[in-house]
Amino acid sequence: MDDIERAAVRLDEVAHVTPELTSRTLDDRTAATVRLKAECFQRTGSFKFRGAYNAVAALPAATRSAGVITFSSGNHGQAIALAAALHGIPAVIVMPHDAPATKRDAAVGYGAEVVGYDRYAESREQIGDDLAAQRGLTLIPPFDAWDVMAGQGTLARELFASEPVDTLVVCVGGGGLISGCATVAKANGDVRVIGVEPEAGDDVRRSLAEGRRVTLDETPMTISDGQQTLSCSDRTFAVIQDRVDEIVTVTDSEIVAAMRFAFGRLNIVLEPSGASALAAVLNGALDVAGQRVGVTMSGGNVDLARFANLTAG
Amino acid sequence: MDDIERAAVRLDEVAHVTPELTSRTLDDRTAATVRLKAECFQRTGSFKFRGAYNAVAALPAATRSAGVITFSSGNHGQAIALAAALHGIPAVIVMPHDAPATKRDAAVGYGAEVVGYDRYAESREQIGDDLAAQRGLTLIPPFDAWDVMAGQGTLARELFASEPVDTLVVCVGGGGLISGCATVAKANGDVRVIGVEPEAGDDVRRSLAEGRRVTLDETPMTISDGQQTLSCSDRTFAVIQDRVDEIVTVTDSEIVAAMRFAFGRLNIVLEPSGASALAAVLNGALDVAGQRVGVTMSGGNVDLARFANLTAG
Repeated sequence: MDDIERAAVRLDEVAHVTPELTSRTLDDRTAATVRLKAECFQRTGSFKFRGAYNAVAALPAATRSAGVITFSSGNHGQAIALAAALHGIPAVIVMPHDAPATKRDAAVGYGAEVVGYDRYAESREQIGDDLAAQRGLTLIPPFDAWDVMAGQGTLARELFASEPVDTLVVCVGGGGLISGCATVAKANGDVRVIGVEPEAGDDVRRSLAEGRRVTLDETPMTISDGQQTLSCSDRTFAVIQDRVDEIVTVTDSEIVAAMRFAFGRLNIVLEPSGASALAAVLNGALDVAGQRVGVTMSGGNVDLARFANLTAG
Repeated sequence: MDDIERAAVRLDEVAHVTPELTSRTLDDRTAATVRLKAECFQRTGSFKFRGAYNAVAALPAATRSAGVITFSSGNHGQAIALAAALHGIPAVIVMPHDAPATKRDAAVGYGAEVVGYDRYAESREQIGDDLAAQRGLTLIPPFDAWDVMAGQGTLARELFASEPVDTLVVCVGGGGLISGCATVAKANGDVRVIGVEPEAGDDVRRSLAEGRRVTLDETPMTISDGQQTLSCSDRTFAVIQDRVDEIVTVTDSEIVAAMRFAFGRLNIVLEPSGASALAAVLNGALDVAGQRVGVTMSGGNVDLARFANLTAG
C-alpha cells in the first residue's frame, strides 16, 4: 500500500481520475450495485498509463534522463511512450517489422522511437539489451515490476475512495493490474477479489489451482489480444496467490457480448481485453446478488474496423 | 438564469454530472483547449433527460400525479418515460405503429405506455389531445417549453462551473439545448455561442439570417435524426436571436468523421446529432485558435448496426 500511495502522489494531476459508470440494466440483471471503472478514458486509452508513468517517475533522475525501452507494441508501449514524453526523455519501443502500421503510428505519435526487428531471425531481447547497454536505457516491462504493479493499483484506490466494494472484478493478463488492485482491496477489509481471463488463456487460473506458476505452451487463441500472455511473473503470482480469491474465465463470445453491451448501454468503446471483467459479470457465472461490485473496464484501444468485425452478426 | 438555477436544484442527485473529455489530438488540431461535455453518459443516453425531468418536476403535484404525454419517439420520449417513472406517475408516448421496435422497447423499458397510431390516417395531435383530456395528462413538448429549455441549460452550467469558456459550440435541433446553454453563457460574460445544424436542415441558421422564424417545407435529408426538426419555436427563437452569435452547418460526412473521431480517439459512442457540434470543431470552419472551447456531445443513442453502417468504408 505504501508503494501505491506513492504512485497516487506521482499520478496526481497527471493521470485521469476516470469516470465510474453505472447501468440500471446491469444492476437489474445482476441484482447488485455495480460500478464500472472506465479506464478506456485513461490517457493513452488504457490503465497501462498508470503503471508506466509511475515506473518512469520512480527512476532516479540520472538514470531516467538516459531514457527507457520496452518491447510491448500494445497498450503498455503507448503508455511508456507518453510517460517518457511527459518526462522529456527518450523512449524506444522494440516492435517487429511486420507490426501493424497503426501500432507504429501510435507509438511515434506519442513521441517514441520505434526500432524494428525481424521476428523470425532476430531476438527482441538481444536487440533490447544491446540498445539498453549502448544508450543507458532502462527496460520497463509491462507487468513484472513493483512500480508498474503499484501504479495499476491506483485504479482500485480511486474506486474504493468513492464508495465501498464487496466484490472487485478485474481483467487479468500478466497480473500487473490485479496484483495492484487486490492489494488495495485487501487493505480495505474483507473484499472478495475475482480475476478474469479468456477461456483459452487461463494460465493464472491454472497457476492458482496448481499452486505454482503455469506457463502456456503457445499463444492462446483468443480475440483478447491484451490477455495473450503465456504466464504471469513470479512477482505478480506471489501477490495473486496471497490476495486474489478466484480466477474465472470467459469465452470470446461472452467478451463480444460485453463489448456490445458497453456500446449499446454505456455508449463506450471497449477492446476485448478491456471487456473481459464486464463479461464475467454479465454472463451470470459470478454470484454478486445484493453486493456492491467494482469492475475494471481496462481499455478501449480497438479500431473501428476490427470492432465492427468482432461485433457483426 | 433563475429558471436554470431552479432546474439545477431539481436535477441535483437525479441527473448525472456528465464527464468532460479532452483530447490532445483535438487540441493540437484546433490550437485550442477543448472540453467535450459527454451527455452520451447522461441518463437515457442524452441531454434530453435534463429538460424532461425538470419539466415533470416543475408541474404542480396535483397536475403531475395524473401523468404526462409526449409524441417524441426519440430521446425526448425516453427521457419523459424515465422522468415519469422516477416520479411514480404514468407516461404515455404516442408513436406511429411502424416506429422501430427498438424505440417502442426503449420507452416500455423505461416504464411508459406506448400508444400507436396510423401515421397516414390519423393525427397524433388529435390522439394526444384526446388522451390528455380524457386522462388529465400534461403534454411536455421536446423543446417548446420554458422548463424544458431551463433544464437543458444545466449542461452549460456544469461546464462553466468547472472552467471558463470563450466559445461554446452547441448542437441545434428545435433549439431547447442551445437556448438554455446560451442563457448560461451570456450570464458568464462575453462568451461566443455557436450553434451547429446539419447542412440539409438549416432552418435556425436561415431564421437568424432572415430575422424571422423559417420553417422547412419537408423533413431534411440528413443522417442526423435528432436534428430533423422543421423549425424552432417562437420561445426558443426569441432566446436564440438574443443570445446566439452564429449558426454554422456541417455535412453528413463531417458528422460521420466526428463519430469516427469520438470512437477512435475518445472511446465513446455518439449518435449523429450528438456528434454535430464536434464535427463543426473538427472540420476547421470555426476559428477557435487560442481559445477555451466548450462543446456539447449531446447523445449516444444509436444502435450498433446503424453505427457500423454509417461509419463503414
